[in-house]
Amino acid sequence: MTVEVEVTIKLKRGVTDPEGENTKKALNLLGFNNVHSVKSMKTFRIAIEDAEEEGSDVKYEVEEMCKKLLANPVIHDYKISVVK
Amino acid sequence: MTVEVEVTIKLKRGVTDPEGENTKKALNLLGFNNVHSVKSMKTFRIAIEDAEEEGSDVKYEVEEMCKKLLANPVIHDYKISVVK
Repeated sequence: MTVEVEVTIKLKRGVTDPEGENTKKALNLLGFNNVHSVKSMKTFRIAIEDAEEEGSDVKYEVEEMCKKLLANPVIHDYKISVVK
Repeated sequence: MTVEVEVTIKLKRGVTDPEGENTKKALNLLGFNNVHSVKSMKTFRIAIEDAEEEGSDVKYEVEEMCKKLLANPVIHDYKISVVK
């Protein structure tokens, strides 16, 4: 059974987000003056073959992926959600 | 009233996603052999001052932002959701 998992990786509170800040500036310059802040995030949608047919195992595995490759624990927080 | 809107920008079906493909390869090399596919997406969380206190107006405005700056209509699809 294939399970689809969405991993959202965002910067920790206090870490500068130049992409978000510059997007905000650009939006303001384009006339969207009511934009207060923009935060940028990265999302990966991962399709995994799940032999066990148990959601919790997949979540644990994706957490390992985040720790080993997808996220940098110094600056990133991540959220894992099983889509289907 | 400040409204938070999340914009998810992903590549259209058929558009090559090198970041996703390489992430998949790297995960397989790390031993996660049950990963079938990885798709990369970009998310912006935008805080907007909403004078009208109507959700629909904000959504329309964020759609304009997508058209003018955030997304490239040739290769991107986007999804707008009001968070709070």
